[in-house]
Amino acid sequence: MPLITQLGRIAGEHNVFSSREERFCYSYDGTFHFHLPDVVVKPQNAEQVARIIKLANDNGTPVFPRGAGTGLSGGSLPVRGGIAMVLIDMDCILEIDAANQVAVVEPGVITGQLQAAVEEQGLFYPPDPGSLEVCTIGGNIAECAGGPRGVKYGVTRDYVLGLELVTPTGDLIHTGGKTIKNVTGYDLTRLIVGSEGTLGIVTKALLRLIPQPKAIKTVLAVFDDLLQASEAILNVFHSGVTPATMEIMDAEAIKCVVEQAGARLPVDSEAILLIEVDGRPAAVEEEVTAVAEACLRYQARSVETAGTPEERNRLWQARRAVSPALVKLKPTKISEDATVPRAQVPAMIRRLQQIREKYDLKLVIFGHAGDGNLHPNIIADERDAGEMTRVEAAVGEIFQAALELGGTLSGEHGIGMMKAPYMQAEFGTRGLAYMRRIKRSLDPNNILNPGKIFPE
Amino acid sequence: MPLITQLGRIAGEHNVFSSREERFCYSYDGTFHFHLPDVVVKPQNAEQVARIIKLANDNGTPVFPRGAGTGLSGGSLPVRGGIAMVLIDMDCILEIDAANQVAVVEPGVITGQLQAAVEEQGLFYPPDPGSLEVCTIGGNIAECAGGPRGVKYGVTRDYVLGLELVTPTGDLIHTGGKTIKNVTGYDLTRLIVGSEGTLGIVTKALLRLIPQPKAIKTVLAVFDDLLQASEAILNVFHSGVTPATMEIMDAEAIKCVVEQAGARLPVDSEAILLIEVDGRPAAVEEEVTAVAEACLRYQARSVETAGTPEERNRLWQARRAVSPALVKLKPTKISEDATVPRAQVPAMIRRLQQIREKYDLKLVIFGHAGDGNLHPNIIADERDAGEMTRVEAAVGEIFQAALELGGTLSGEHGIGMMKAPYMQAEFGTRGLAYMRRIKRSLDPNNILNPGKIFPE
Repeated sequence: MPLITQLGRIAGEHNVFSSREERFCYSYDGTFHFHLPDVVVKPQNAEQVARIIKLANDNGTPVFPRGAGTGLSGGSLPVRGGIAMVLIDMDCILEIDAANQVAVVEPGVITGQLQAAVEEQGLFYPPDPGSLEVCTIGGNIAECAGGPRGVKYGVTRDYVLGLELVTPTGDLIHTGGKTIKNVTGYDLTRLIVGSEGTLGIVTKALLRLIPQPKAIKTVLAVFDDLLQASEAILNVFHSGVTPATMEIMDAEAIKCVVEQAGARLPVDSEAILLIEVDGRPAAVEEEVTAVAEACLRYQARSVETAGTPEERNRLWQARRAVSPALVKLKPTKISEDATVPRAQVPAMIRRLQQIREKYDLKLVIFGHAGDGNLHPNIIADERDAGEMTRVEAAVGEIFQAALELGGTLSGEHGIGMMKAPYMQAEFGTRGLAYMRRIKRSLDPNNILNPGKIFPE
Repeated sequence: MPLITQLGRIAGEHNVFSSREERFCYSYDGTFHFHLPDVVVKPQNAEQVARIIKLANDNGTPVFPRGAGTGLSGGSLPVRGGIAMVLIDMDCILEIDAANQVAVVEPGVITGQLQAAVEEQGLFYPPDPGSLEVCTIGGNIAECAGGPRGVKYGVTRDYVLGLELVTPTGDLIHTGGKTIKNVTGYDLTRLIVGSEGTLGIVTKALLRLIPQPKAIKTVLAVFDDLLQASEAILNVFHSGVTPATMEIMDAEAIKCVVEQAGARLPVDSEAILLIEVDGRPAAVEEEVTAVAEACLRYQARSVETAGTPEERNRLWQARRAVSPALVKLKPTKISEDATVPRAQVPAMIRRLQQIREKYDLKLVIFGHAGDGNLHPNIIADERDAGEMTRVEAAVGEIFQAALELGGTLSGEHGIGMMKAPYMQAEFGTRGLAYMRRIKRSLDPNNILNPGKIFPE
């Protein structure tokens, strides 16, 4: 029986797609790569997921799980054809358990919708990837998504308490539970978070919620000197404040949002910092003063503070405009997320500036300076082969710089297929061998998302 | 060449111990079990650890890694003879990196000493197991130790950013790094935390530090009714306060500390709650008021608040006296840590009371009520075979109750050998098979800490 017919019997014929047009819709993600799957299936429940995985094992067909396709490392791309398993129909918020501060959700729930739902009950789900209005919790778990709030609140892994998942051989198992403390057996929950769909397919997640902060204030500080801005960052932390967000934009990023998006920032400034503090109102007042003082001590040209949602929104406009403004310059946007220890941010910025000059590329620096998770973005045109060769060399040097500064290849985008060739440089043969043994033992037929994480 | 000679060549003869008396010193832990190792070795560095593990693989000799031996689940006991590897000589705090808020330590560093060292720099390492004056970071990582502060600050896993470890086959690898965000490859760091020395031996740890809270206040609330105390707990969280600690003691525990330790508590009360809040001074004031109000709303007989270290210490005395007071009653203390979702604490307490009556045992209830991590302690005499049979049946029912209430076997003590027989009940055959595949793939000769976690 053809695979398509078998899939139709499991998930219903109307949930299986095989025309070129339909398959094309699931051949891309947030990178600039395309890979056509042989067939697309949208399972409706965990039992269907398990049956599809068993079928794939019987047939030796690879399965590429997928949420909204917003990933930035190629994690969901069907690089070997096979089955694209689209989980967006499993999109129920099953429970918001306010007493235990836990949400139970299916993988297709959109992150922003979950946040809105828990906020109605005075609760807070902090992870805030840039794509939160469209991306799914399942994808967030697969890639261990982060966002600006990571500096204070951590990333997706810090909010996943338990999982229901289908293993690479088609068994339905569960991990963790509703308790914060849990040290029963191996921590499979955290092993699965960030494993990019290579060790199991999440069919249900138990997410930790926290009380919503009662007050938020935002500080926008403009600097004439990037180094002074970097010193101000460290000084904020040294003063005992852990801000909820601590974003940086360099001169190139400022120029871009001023010219392309009409942002009202001084175009001759070298850096801006966008810093938020949240918590109890009285504490927020104390902390916002400390933040402003730290910025002024390091020669900020101006410091603006906002408390109302409208004012805060205005200060965030420039930061939010960066990505849309960049793609107006050239069509191919390569967003990296190599991450360094916080104190190495100034050194990393210098290295990025050198790389920009060396390869004569449009390289814009912005991102989450408070946790060392910068987003150097290279804007290029993939039809220009010469430029793309320089891009490739520059990306390699960015990773090398991050590793030399004690950092890591990826802070929040994952490895996917894009960074797999660099894994050896971070872990060496033996570290990679340890990871490979885990993959091989759990997925003996290499069914789940092959071609990801590991260099080939 | 005999094993002892080979070990001596690796670690130095004076670091290898084989007399019965010497081996006896490493045959126990915080449980009431004893297992003599065949030989004891104290490696001085990671290279020696790796060479010993390779030797053990060559000889098929099991290795049982060990810190201070304070574990409460038998995790470090050399249940099959072999080599007891004692890591207490590797006890250097290698670095306190204040700018990045990271400490780099060897496994033998004592938890309390690390805390004191980082506090000198205004920083804070929150995990606070009861044994923190003697236990080691290596042991804390192996068992994912918790403590009272878990309710606000999480447990050991939340503070381990990276590791250097020797794999079960003797390779030296590293995981993670100094960055908070890291999603490069599988999260081996969290896989190792809580794996009880079965997947690798930690030789270095990178620990996340946070700013020291600027103020702490403690509330002691006395209740005539245990159910009202439980409702007060939930009400505190509902008011948006996440206390730093939220401890409970039941009537039996109160009676015990009054009679055995002269604690000044009303002996006719049904429960006390000991609640701490910390943070910015202004926020602490707001929160301590909310906590006191929540307790009074649920009929607390009295509420006392303390701000100075001396006053706070006085309020904590009764709670600290529980364990020492218990062992005055009978010699064998079985401390469990089955954990339930916070909202199920009242139901769990009722189940524990029923178990106490059914088996006619001295069962005292106290522990970390804020995160559902109660410590039902059974006080018995292991020489009384009849009583011990009742203890065993009661322990089985405690686990069953926790699982039925959506909880887990262990919140912070680990599985070790004591709870291994109950693993099947929590994970089922398929969940256990997934864990076993990981263990087998990484430790093909079953060298590292065999007989732990998995039922036999």
